[in-house]
Amino acid sequence: MKRKGFVYQGSEIYGGLAGIWEFGHIGKLMKDNLTNVWKKFFLNLDDNFYEIEGSVIMPEDVFKASGHLDNFDDPLAECFKCGTTNRADKIIEEKLNRREESKTNEELLKILNENNLNCPKCGNKFEKVTTFNMMFPITYGPKGGQTVYLRPETAQTPYLDFKMQHELLRKKLPMGLATIGRAFRNEISPKNSLIRCREFEQAELQIFFNPRNINEERISDIANFSDIKNEKLIVMLQNERESQVKEISPEELLEYGLPKFYIYYMAKVQDYILNVLKIPKEKFRLYELNDKEKAFYNKNHFDVEWFSEELNDWIEIGGVHYRTDHDLKGHEKVSKTKLKVLDEETKERFIPHVLELSFGHWRNFYMLLEEHLHYDEGRENNVLKLPKKLAPLKASVFPLINKPEFQDTAREIHSDLVENDIISSFDKSGSIGKRYARADEIGTPYCITVDHDTLETGIVTVRDRDSTNQIKIHKDKISETIQNLINNKVTLSKL
Amino acid sequence: MKRKGFVYQGSEIYGGLAGIWEFGHIGKLMKDNLTNVWKKFFLNLDDNFYEIEGSVIMPEDVFKASGHLDNFDDPLAECFKCGTTNRADKIIEEKLNRREESKTNEELLKILNENNLNCPKCGNKFEKVTTFNMMFPITYGPKGGQTVYLRPETAQTPYLDFKMQHELLRKKLPMGLATIGRAFRNEISPKNSLIRCREFEQAELQIFFNPRNINEERISDIANFSDIKNEKLIVMLQNERESQVKEISPEELLEYGLPKFYIYYMAKVQDYILNVLKIPKEKFRLYELNDKEKAFYNKNHFDVEWFSEELNDWIEIGGVHYRTDHDLKGHEKVSKTKLKVLDEETKERFIPHVLELSFGHWRNFYMLLEEHLHYDEGRENNVLKLPKKLAPLKASVFPLINKPEFQDTAREIHSDLVENDIISSFDKSGSIGKRYARADEIGTPYCITVDHDTLETGIVTVRDRDSTNQIKIHKDKISETIQNLINNKVTLSKL
Repeated sequence: MKRKGFVYQGSEIYGGLAGIWEFGHIGKLMKDNLTNVWKKFFLNLDDNFYEIEGSVIMPEDVFKASGHLDNFDDPLAECFKCGTTNRADKIIEEKLNRREESKTNEELLKILNENNLNCPKCGNKFEKVTTFNMMFPITYGPKGGQTVYLRPETAQTPYLDFKMQHELLRKKLPMGLATIGRAFRNEISPKNSLIRCREFEQAELQIFFNPRNINEERISDIANFSDIKNEKLIVMLQNERESQVKEISPEELLEYGLPKFYIYYMAKVQDYILNVLKIPKEKFRLYELNDKEKAFYNKNHFDVEWFSEELNDWIEIGGVHYRTDHDLKGHEKVSKTKLKVLDEETKERFIPHVLELSFGHWRNFYMLLEEHLHYDEGRENNVLKLPKKLAPLKASVFPLINKPEFQDTAREIHSDLVENDIISSFDKSGSIGKRYARADEIGTPYCITVDHDTLETGIVTVRDRDSTNQIKIHKDKISETIQNLINNKVTLSKL
Repeated sequence: MKRKGFVYQGSEIYGGLAGIWEFGHIGKLMKDNLTNVWKKFFLNLDDNFYEIEGSVIMPEDVFKASGHLDNFDDPLAECFKCGTTNRADKIIEEKLNRREESKTNEELLKILNENNLNCPKCGNKFEKVTTFNMMFPITYGPKGGQTVYLRPETAQTPYLDFKMQHELLRKKLPMGLATIGRAFRNEISPKNSLIRCREFEQAELQIFFNPRNINEERISDIANFSDIKNEKLIVMLQNERESQVKEISPEELLEYGLPKFYIYYMAKVQDYILNVLKIPKEKFRLYELNDKEKAFYNKNHFDVEWFSEELNDWIEIGGVHYRTDHDLKGHEKVSKTKLKVLDEETKERFIPHVLELSFGHWRNFYMLLEEHLHYDEGRENNVLKLPKKLAPLKASVFPLINKPEFQDTAREIHSDLVENDIISSFDKSGSIGKRYARADEIGTPYCITVDHDTLETGIVTVRDRDSTNQIKIHKDKISETIQNLINNKVTLSKL
């Protein structure tokens, strides 16, 4: 990730800051593409889904209402001998391979001690597990009287803005408010680069709806439950942990007890991961949390999981959370602002329920890199076979020879691509083979070479990243052709 | 800004948090457009300009090196009677209409007292002016041993990443690293919404270059000083404050003593503000700061200023800062990491100099709204005449009548626009006149109406925001036409 400029640790010249990561020039382009692909997919699931952008600083009352002030804790096992800090539940998970998300501090300490799980650094026995709140408090304003927090999840922004946006958007439900942005958690042990950071991004969609309609056939103006009836959902249900992951139909999930509204969006999330991000289905599952594991405010909770070969583990890359009216109710109570809306049919006022589709934006980024990077024996170099929409650069233009006439034409083509909003690079150094290899490694789908032919006839060579096939095309057609190829409106073999 | 969903105060249901603002669904779209327009303009000024994205949390040493820990202060006049906190220099600026950016605390107190500038809330006389550091410290990690800061400017990210990016980008200079992102300042008195906030965004480009070449004709591989020779720059020089702003040529600025490299980018900044953001030139000036006013590390410093009718004042919306080797030198010293690079010609090692093009991203946003919103007497509604690329929505599709056949066709057109990445809305409520007015107010350039004609012949009516002219066009041509209109590849009158 570092060598090609995707991602590296923050403040590296100062030795790096634990849990902090930065995006280099290539990584930034790719992350923006992921953002755009996410937005295009999720915001277009309904007419009434929008993105908003809030602040990362929020007042203390917000987290009183949300429960984060009281409950957003991790169990801290501090070694009294060497001073290392560890997450008690993670040590157990790693060493004993079991999840302990609902134990008390005393129970965790007992498990650690009984299994001889001592300080990983100095081997000392742990004497205490304490509760550690993961939010970052900040002293706000010049007089220092006010404590505020960096938000630990982006979700609170849509909840606070719900009332205003609901009025702005003509009081229609379902209404979706998406937020893609930074969140901050004072993790006890940040690790695995983008997987567990202290500063990171989430991409979340909060869907506010009338709970009366949760089992209606009609999901929204443009969506129906029957639209997904032929999908098979890849799930691991809470009572079937020992068995295999299974593929079951929406009908079966309905019988299992999940509401239509929930199943519909589970299917959409799966569609996104498998068909947009192109993750193989054997590495994907929707993992149901049981009552002990899930947050107390979630009525239904499936983690979206991906199996990382590199980390040899299932990684939570997102979640589908039926948060009910927990959040809005909490904010109504603490803020003393009425958040009820009118049910047009029954004329009753009610607090909308929330279905949250949540994605660890950087974990998704990490997944894409691991999943799509392959070593190609024939070419003897890495090829990053990202879906084309996600590729950092869409094209790279090469003058065959370092002479002005070749360079000028190559630059002309490059400028035309840029003018048409197609992110491309101009690369004049090294052999064409080396330039191809460089483009492959960062996933550039199309390389365009300006050769002697071009100077005479205007014809350039376009080479395809995945097949290495080459086609000849007139330079005046380049921008249009690349655009159509990226959008899958044509295929190379048809040109 | 609030009524249409552009911008509103953060945590409003909790009474709002001072200095914190959020972007509603329309504002977010427009801000993203501003980001894209900025990137397209500035990143394409050279082949070797890239965007990176860093963390907002940075370790203390960074700000020791940059000088922020010692010098990033504002003069705080706290009223000992009622407790209000005020910025001493801003009270003087507002009441006496003079800038006091270089006075000591004692001098400021004297000016306040001599001019009877008392507490604006309770009228009490100020007794003390103290120094207040504007950074937000954070206790980092579970043991609380480390102090880190929220970055007060985005610029430090490129400085820290310089060495790595320079190697990644094949050691070429000039190299530009842009960052668009959040910065945080504990302002004493946040005010005027997006103009002075505590959490805000900057869009900055740091250009690293060899100081030996600062007066070369050749600016980069693709840019020359002579490219701008016919521009007239709108400046207010430091010794000519009493006189009018004047328009002078690059040659004259060269004689005045500014380097070519600096003048070239001044011209580009002006080009951006006047020709891309379409700000009238009488409301624009490049304001030179004198030695007392400018930051001690800036050798040349012009503020980019815009005159706000609403605020009745010149507002700093950006700056062109020749920061020399101040920042890299500071980081080399404190981090003990070598940041020198090789001069290919002289074979000497040197620390690159930095020219910073800095924009208050949200101030630019504010400027765009104020500048382009006009009340139209004929239409009797507001029209937001934003440059089309900046408009939140590019099109809105209206079924003339609320019947399925009209709606279905309108939805079909809307979906096709979305599929082609043209942000559009579907609006079926109210008269066509009302829908036009709604679209005008948020700056939607094109409204597309599906009427009886459409059902028979496929022809829709496209109405232009600025002229209200209407043309007829076949629905299958809509996406392509709107795209071409937005990109100014065709004009409505030619269709």
